[in-house]
Amino acid sequence: MKFVTFTKKDGLVSAGWLADVDHVVDMHEASGGVLPNNLVNFLDHSEEYMKIVNHFVPNGQRGIYRLSEIQLKAPLPVPRSIRDFYAFEQHVKTARENRGLEMIPEWYEIPVFYFSNHLAIKGPGESIVIPIECEWLDYELEIACIIGKEGRGISEDKADEYIFGYCILNDWSARDLQRKEMKVGLGPAKGKDFSTSIGPWVVTKDEMEPFKAGKGFNLTMKARVNGSLLSEGNMKDIYYSFGEMIARASQGVTLYPGEIIGSGTVGTGCILELGEEIHRWLEPGDEVELEIDHLGVLKNTIIAGNEVK
Amino acid sequence: MKFVTFTKKDGLVSAGWLADVDHVVDMHEASGGVLPNNLVNFLDHSEEYMKIVNHFVPNGQRGIYRLSEIQLKAPLPVPRSIRDFYAFEQHVKTARENRGLEMIPEWYEIPVFYFSNHLAIKGPGESIVIPIECEWLDYELEIACIIGKEGRGISEDKADEYIFGYCILNDWSARDLQRKEMKVGLGPAKGKDFSTSIGPWVVTKDEMEPFKAGKGFNLTMKARVNGSLLSEGNMKDIYYSFGEMIARASQGVTLYPGEIIGSGTVGTGCILELGEEIHRWLEPGDEVELEIDHLGVLKNTIIAGNEVK
Repeated sequence: MKFVTFTKKDGLVSAGWLADVDHVVDMHEASGGVLPNNLVNFLDHSEEYMKIVNHFVPNGQRGIYRLSEIQLKAPLPVPRSIRDFYAFEQHVKTARENRGLEMIPEWYEIPVFYFSNHLAIKGPGESIVIPIECEWLDYELEIACIIGKEGRGISEDKADEYIFGYCILNDWSARDLQRKEMKVGLGPAKGKDFSTSIGPWVVTKDEMEPFKAGKGFNLTMKARVNGSLLSEGNMKDIYYSFGEMIARASQGVTLYPGEIIGSGTVGTGCILELGEEIHRWLEPGDEVELEIDHLGVLKNTIIAGNEVK
Repeated sequence: MKFVTFTKKDGLVSAGWLADVDHVVDMHEASGGVLPNNLVNFLDHSEEYMKIVNHFVPNGQRGIYRLSEIQLKAPLPVPRSIRDFYAFEQHVKTARENRGLEMIPEWYEIPVFYFSNHLAIKGPGESIVIPIECEWLDYELEIACIIGKEGRGISEDKADEYIFGYCILNDWSARDLQRKEMKVGLGPAKGKDFSTSIGPWVVTKDEMEPFKAGKGFNLTMKARVNGSLLSEGNMKDIYYSFGEMIARASQGVTLYPGEIIGSGTVGTGCILELGEEIHRWLEPGDEVELEIDHLGVLKNTIIAGNEVK
C-alpha cells in the first residue's frame, strides 16, 4: 500500500492511502473517524490500525477523492525526527576524492549518522528556497525508512519488524555553508537544515519484499534536473543495511513511530560527486526529480530566497 | 517565574510554576482547564497564556501541591528539538589542545551547532544509563534557552522577543563513542544521543534581566561530582550571545515554540577539558550536580547499562 498525506479543496489536511492510480482514500473520513487524520498518529498504533485498513470496505464514495482534486503533501509533514546515515560507499569515496581526501577507515567499522531538522520537511511539488549566502545548492538522492513501532536495542535481524515502509528522500544541501561549518567538527547543520523533501508516498514494507537483493533492494535510483538524467544508481549497492542502521540508532536509545532514517546519498546521487564540469549548482527555476523504482517520483522546484518573505 | 513539569501522586503528569519555595501550581487544574497540562502546548500560545498566568488568583487550594508531594520532571519532557551550540571559546580551545589540535579559524566567524536527540530528555533526579561500549562517560555544564515564539530570519537584536526562558542543560557525552564517530565527519550522534538533562525548571527571561553582562549573564556555573567541585565558570564569558545563536539557527529556517538552544560547555565544564589526571570518567553510582546561579541545581545519578532492560 501507498500511504499519503494531502490537502483537500476545503484546505483541510488529512492522510490515507492510494486506492488506485486515480484515487486516494481519506482514512479519517472514510472510516467515520475511527482512523486518525495524520500518519504519525496512525503509526503510534499501526498494528491495530493496519487491521482496520486491511479489512476496509468503502462506504460508497465517502472519503474517496480523485488525485486531481487534492494536493499531495509530504507523507509525514512533521516526522518525530530525522537521522540521516552515510551508507553508500561510492558516495563517501567520491565526495572525499573530489576534495582531495582519503577514505576514512572508521566508515567501514560503524554506520554513522547525524540528526537533521525534522521541522523543515517539504513534500512533492513544493518549492525549495535557496538559503541566504548559498551559491552551491545541491540535491541528494536517498531512500528512507519510516519507523512504525517503538523499540530500543533492536538487533539487526529483528529490525524489519520496526519498519513501516519506505520513501524517497532528498537531503537538500548548501555545499558552501556545509563546507565551512563542518570545519568546526560538529557536522552539517545550516548546510542541511533548510529543507528535506520526502514522498510522494510511503510504500509499506510488504510491497518491497520482491525486490530484496544484497543488503537492500534491487531498485534503480535516478535523479534528473530539468529533464536531464544526472544520477543513476541501485539501492542494492548499499554498504550498511537498514537493519544495521536501525541497530546502531537504537543502541541505548528508544526509537519511536514516525522517526525517519535516511540512507545517505547513492553513488553519483548529487552534483558534489559528479563535479561542476558535469553540471552547475542548482539555480532558481530548476526542476529536480528523484525517482526510485516502485517508490515513485519526488519533484521539487528551486526558487530564489527573495521570492518569499 | 519558574515553570515546571511534574508527576503527581496519582501518576498524572502536569505542568505549572513554583508558587513559593515549598509549593507548585498545577496550571491546568488551578485554572479549571483553561491552561494546558504541558509546557510545549503552553509555549504555543505563550503570549495569551502568560496574561492569564500574570492575573492568576488561587481558588483556595485547587491545583496547589507541596513540592514534597510531587516529583519534578524535565520542564519539557519532549521539546520540539534541541540544537546545541559551541559558544564558549575556552571549552573549544582546551578540548582541542587536549587532543593536540589547534583552534579552528572558522569557529570565530560563525556560531556552529548540531542537532541532538530531543526524544531522549532526562529531568532532575533521573538516572543516566551508561551507553553500551562506553568507558569514557562525561558531563557537560551548559545553559539553554527555550524558544517561546515562532520566527524566521530573526535578527540578533530582536532575538530576545523569541526567548521564553532559560534552564540548566547537561549534554551527557560518551567520549569514546564520540571520538570514533566524529572521524567520519558528520559530528556527534551516538556520543550524545542517549541522554540530555534539562531542569530543574525554566526561569522566565524577565528574572534574568538584572544579571545581564557581556554577551550573556553574570551567573556562576558549577559542576560537582559526588560533592567535589570540578568545574567553575561564568556565563558572561560566552563568545556568542543567545541572540547570535538564534539569528544563526533561524536563518532560512522557522523556529517554533518549544525548541531548545544549548550554549555548549562553559570553560572547565567537563572532564574532557579537565583531563583524567584531575578526575576519572564517570562511573555507576556517581552523582553529578550542575548549578547555575538563579537557575537552580540539576542533579542526576549514573547507573550501569545492565541495570535497566
